[in-house]
Amino acid sequence: MKTKNPFCERLAAFADKVSERRLDAAVVFGQANIRALTGVDCDNACLLVGGGKVVFYTDFRYTSAVGRTAPWLKVDDIKKLKGDKPLKAGGLAFSKVGYESSVLHSKFLLLKKVFPGARFVDVAEDIGGLRAVKTAWEQDALRAAERLNDEIWAEARSSFRAGMTERGMARIIKHLMIDRGEGEAFETIVCVGRNAAECHHVPDDTVWSGREPVLVDMGVKLGGVCSDMTRNIVPERPSRLYKKVYSLVLEANMRAIEAARPGMTAEALDGVARRFLSKNGFGKAFGHSLGHGVGFEVHEPPYAAKRRKTVLKEGMSLTIEPGVYLEGNLGVRIEDLVLITADGCEVLSHSEK
Amino acid sequence: MKTKNPFCERLAAFADKVSERRLDAAVVFGQANIRALTGVDCDNACLLVGGGKVVFYTDFRYTSAVGRTAPWLKVDDIKKLKGDKPLKAGGLAFSKVGYESSVLHSKFLLLKKVFPGARFVDVAEDIGGLRAVKTAWEQDALRAAERLNDEIWAEARSSFRAGMTERGMARIIKHLMIDRGEGEAFETIVCVGRNAAECHHVPDDTVWSGREPVLVDMGVKLGGVCSDMTRNIVPERPSRLYKKVYSLVLEANMRAIEAARPGMTAEALDGVARRFLSKNGFGKAFGHSLGHGVGFEVHEPPYAAKRRKTVLKEGMSLTIEPGVYLEGNLGVRIEDLVLITADGCEVLSHSEK
Repeated sequence: MKTKNPFCERLAAFADKVSERRLDAAVVFGQANIRALTGVDCDNACLLVGGGKVVFYTDFRYTSAVGRTAPWLKVDDIKKLKGDKPLKAGGLAFSKVGYESSVLHSKFLLLKKVFPGARFVDVAEDIGGLRAVKTAWEQDALRAAERLNDEIWAEARSSFRAGMTERGMARIIKHLMIDRGEGEAFETIVCVGRNAAECHHVPDDTVWSGREPVLVDMGVKLGGVCSDMTRNIVPERPSRLYKKVYSLVLEANMRAIEAARPGMTAEALDGVARRFLSKNGFGKAFGHSLGHGVGFEVHEPPYAAKRRKTVLKEGMSLTIEPGVYLEGNLGVRIEDLVLITADGCEVLSHSEK
Repeated sequence: MKTKNPFCERLAAFADKVSERRLDAAVVFGQANIRALTGVDCDNACLLVGGGKVVFYTDFRYTSAVGRTAPWLKVDDIKKLKGDKPLKAGGLAFSKVGYESSVLHSKFLLLKKVFPGARFVDVAEDIGGLRAVKTAWEQDALRAAERLNDEIWAEARSSFRAGMTERGMARIIKHLMIDRGEGEAFETIVCVGRNAAECHHVPDDTVWSGREPVLVDMGVKLGGVCSDMTRNIVPERPSRLYKKVYSLVLEANMRAIEAARPGMTAEALDGVARRFLSKNGFGKAFGHSLGHGVGFEVHEPPYAAKRRKTVLKEGMSLTIEPGVYLEGNLGVRIEDLVLITADGCEVLSHSEK
């Protein structure tokens, strides 16, 4: 394989995994998985990896795109994986086949026809593990996307006025994301006042008086990757409780950033923020996990949460987003995107917090 | 059940199906399926239907939303369907359980733990068949969404200028959809000139000189439902071939609209347009099916295609979108959204064609 394509190494590592696990082959259908293994973005594809071969199955519409992005890949017709006939691929035998448990069950039923008698082994976590560590290309793409997210936040923030609704503020962000990037990585969240206490509030017609806090969780897509950040507009005269909660959440965020480094477990990192908030009486009010990886998808491995034993490695992306939610009263979440470095982490979000 | 909620009848019909098929219960996870059966839009839910009961499993975030939209539904904690413990639901026995083959395989594996020893029967098509026939509420919502789509197209069309790129034109449409509706129902397609020959062209930096034709396939979301329409900007002086193809595609579209009525099969309707284009030498250039239903999802049953024996019924929505694609040269598709009526169809798209 040539080394120009930044995904070659990951594909080679996956091929090694397939051998290690003594699989005859693995079939990969997930769009983001295929992209992360080949660089090709295609909504009708299957990657077959095994026996020293890699075959990219797709339809005629995408043949030339594969040729441009990954010219060393053998391309074949995806119809061969959609009928009920056993697959023939250059004499490969398929008695033990890797697959993603994240495929639709209907697709799995088809796979049983395409690989009759095969034993299926889930390789979703293997691919997830490889995707969790970002290539240099992906790291640059994440830096650029998060930087753009910062710019859009600054511009949106400065145009927010008292009297606007949550929906109206969300629209401002959406417009900027379309003009400057590739649109939203996820549905923008804008919560005025106590609406921020609802973990997944959908922007509605609540009007901002200019005196309540506002929580904004947003991410623009750029270069195919996502960004993700949460900031809060703190009113001039916040309540004492809000002020206290804000400074505790900020400290939890900073402590986790300070602690993040290769070799520690994702669970331990989550614990840094969680213990701090618990000690200060807000442990139960932090009802979600500390963070998740960001890449071609906005939620991907690693996950920083209780019982996640994943060991952090250099090159992993991760959000650090502690939050405190007091029902009917207030909600504060402060979220940065970081990259794990050789001895700590690089914070990609530069917006004031 | 009260009759206020416009989805009650469909839910009752589904409960009847479950009895007819002698299932102990059916579990429904699909977000659009749950919405179509209850009116509740929820991304973490499971509906259990069987033994005269309906239980809506979800988490605390959505309990109040279910109470508002469908107060007669019993609500329970979705965690009961996520562990590996057998489900206990009021003494119901589960030896034959309906499920959607469209769930993730990983979810299916969980279901096998929740219903140990059960035989699973796919009910995805049963639900699809019920969703295909729109309630009066859905029909009104589709009329409003398609009407808005018409308005957005008119406004976008009038602001398109020579020198704009495909991406720029798509952006104009996206902005309007955010301001006037609930955003895009699918990624807007804009193809300048020969790019329209690619069936799924993604808008790029191709510049419109003002002399090439432009194909635009667009749909705005409104009230939770989708719309879908394709129109073409025909240049002042089209090539003879383009002119010929355009008038044939338009005639294929009109003939199918004229023919559409309850009692005929979806395959037969597809055949009306296909035979006409074939007779005129463009059968092979019409490489996709005639149409699909539109509702909470932009592609849903019924599908008007070869070998689809679905019998059209009053209340079904359906796109009618014949197209002719000549590689490296041109592409024309004309798409209207219709509702099947008692004796024909109502065309919901009003844009000039």
